[in-house]
Amino acid sequence: MNGLLRDIGERRLIELVSSYFETQEEDCAVVELGGECLLLTSDMLHEKSDFPPQMTPYQMGWSLVAVNLSDIAAMGGEPLFMVDAIGVPPEFSVEAFKELLSGIHSCALRFGLGVLGGDLDAHDEITLTGFVLGVAREGRVIRRSGAKVGDLLCITGHLGSAGGGLRLIEREKDVDLSDPLVKALFEPVPRVKEGLKLSGSGFVTSMTDISDGLSVSLADLSRASHVGFEIDWERIPVRSELFKVVEDADDLRSLLLSAGGDYELLFTVMPEGVNELRQVVDFTVIGRVVEKNAGERVVPSGYDHFKVEG
Amino acid sequence: MNGLLRDIGERRLIELVSSYFETQEEDCAVVELGGECLLLTSDMLHEKSDFPPQMTPYQMGWSLVAVNLSDIAAMGGEPLFMVDAIGVPPEFSVEAFKELLSGIHSCALRFGLGVLGGDLDAHDEITLTGFVLGVAREGRVIRRSGAKVGDLLCITGHLGSAGGGLRLIEREKDVDLSDPLVKALFEPVPRVKEGLKLSGSGFVTSMTDISDGLSVSLADLSRASHVGFEIDWERIPVRSELFKVVEDADDLRSLLLSAGGDYELLFTVMPEGVNELRQVVDFTVIGRVVEKNAGERVVPSGYDHFKVEG
Repeated sequence: MNGLLRDIGERRLIELVSSYFETQEEDCAVVELGGECLLLTSDMLHEKSDFPPQMTPYQMGWSLVAVNLSDIAAMGGEPLFMVDAIGVPPEFSVEAFKELLSGIHSCALRFGLGVLGGDLDAHDEITLTGFVLGVAREGRVIRRSGAKVGDLLCITGHLGSAGGGLRLIEREKDVDLSDPLVKALFEPVPRVKEGLKLSGSGFVTSMTDISDGLSVSLADLSRASHVGFEIDWERIPVRSELFKVVEDADDLRSLLLSAGGDYELLFTVMPEGVNELRQVVDFTVIGRVVEKNAGERVVPSGYDHFKVEG
Repeated sequence: MNGLLRDIGERRLIELVSSYFETQEEDCAVVELGGECLLLTSDMLHEKSDFPPQMTPYQMGWSLVAVNLSDIAAMGGEPLFMVDAIGVPPEFSVEAFKELLSGIHSCALRFGLGVLGGDLDAHDEITLTGFVLGVAREGRVIRRSGAKVGDLLCITGHLGSAGGGLRLIEREKDVDLSDPLVKALFEPVPRVKEGLKLSGSGFVTSMTDISDGLSVSLADLSRASHVGFEIDWERIPVRSELFKVVEDADDLRSLLLSAGGDYELLFTVMPEGVNELRQVVDFTVIGRVVEKNAGERVVPSGYDHFKVEG
């Protein structure tokens, strides 16, 4: 492999990293220690990629915690502790820095996460890295690899909201920051409680979060579980506000597939458990698990095949 | 507190962070879980501050692991697992990226650390963040706060080598990269084994690593233990190569006090344990613990007082 990183694509880069380390293709690394399953995850956010100009320092801090918690939620774990590495420019105001800390604090408090400090550094570009340690009882960790043909494909919440928010802020300079789509983009709510209930139910066979769009998450589950999926597009729940920013059905589907930032949970459920699970968690069935080689179909929108295999 | 971050100084910034979170002023955060003491630490390195142009990608990767392991060592813990967040420019070559991974891999392998993956991101400036989870048996964690008047102040290895290396590379463009001082700067060796032996001995009362220079580390121990220190300057072990880059005794002392990057362990020992401890760890006694208000003296270099209180 010669050339530059930009030429080889993220998938091959991840494979390269995996060839050096004991990486697991999961939302968190899982290790057993003292009879518990520890979950370790890290996520780095930085100005250029992750913080649009309209985003407040409070929301940057909130997002740092939320995206890390979402990885714990995606495996059905309980978040315990976080350490951060915070790089901020010396020209950052103390007021803005306090807002940033307050955003971290609020999101951590809401989800019972202890923030134990970390590293503080001067950095030209605001760069926030979080590391969260979570825990799950053995046998309760939900991986990407357990989906079985016949299981139902489900998601929590709505899809496409953050992607819609991104379109809004790119389109209008003076966007209403209280718009639910913009809120979804700037203050994502990790599905920690839902993840715990899903993992505790015994009916969920595979899970991941939708951080990089539905197509990436489907491909991840598909690769790990060696299955394919049929999607019922009309069942995917979207906020009514989303129709302000999409042109037509094709555009909507493209947004749902590719837009990241929603941090909903995508999971598969044994059919016999669906009704029971509905008693404890709000979710929507959006499709089903099919054979990997059956030829995945997208129903019923007129497209015949949607290749979501890894 | 108004104004910009650069105006208020790192100490007050850390206090500000501490006012929001459950931060502990230690090299690692310590939490009890399942009868074990877990140690959590994170360190962020980035191009502008931490990677001089002569540094190879291998050494960047090595350093990322080493600085994080040093924090585990400083509390007498055993490193278990690491997750990373790696930000590299798309213009980075695949070859250089493989070198970087190889540096991470080599240092982790040497110290029995499992690297479990993490986050990969495009970032203008090379930005490497590591998160290490370590463990220590309860009662074996060495904090900064246990130093008692009469204890002896000790360090592992040599001091000032990395600072000397920095002077060398700043002075000469075509510096010999195999020079021991440059090696000390670019490939620091964390004192993991020594830290474990020190914590296991039962004689070590406080400890930290010397990552930001002796004066910072002394101030940290002083503040946490409410003590002062007398330093026997002539006893501080330095490499003979260091005399190439210092002008006189004053310059040497200033270098030893302020230059970071050595990653040696600074610790205090009960006097009755020193001889026994020498059987298992190489170290040097460089001073002793005195009352906080006794007026710290620097002996015998002619300076009367060296204020190392926090």
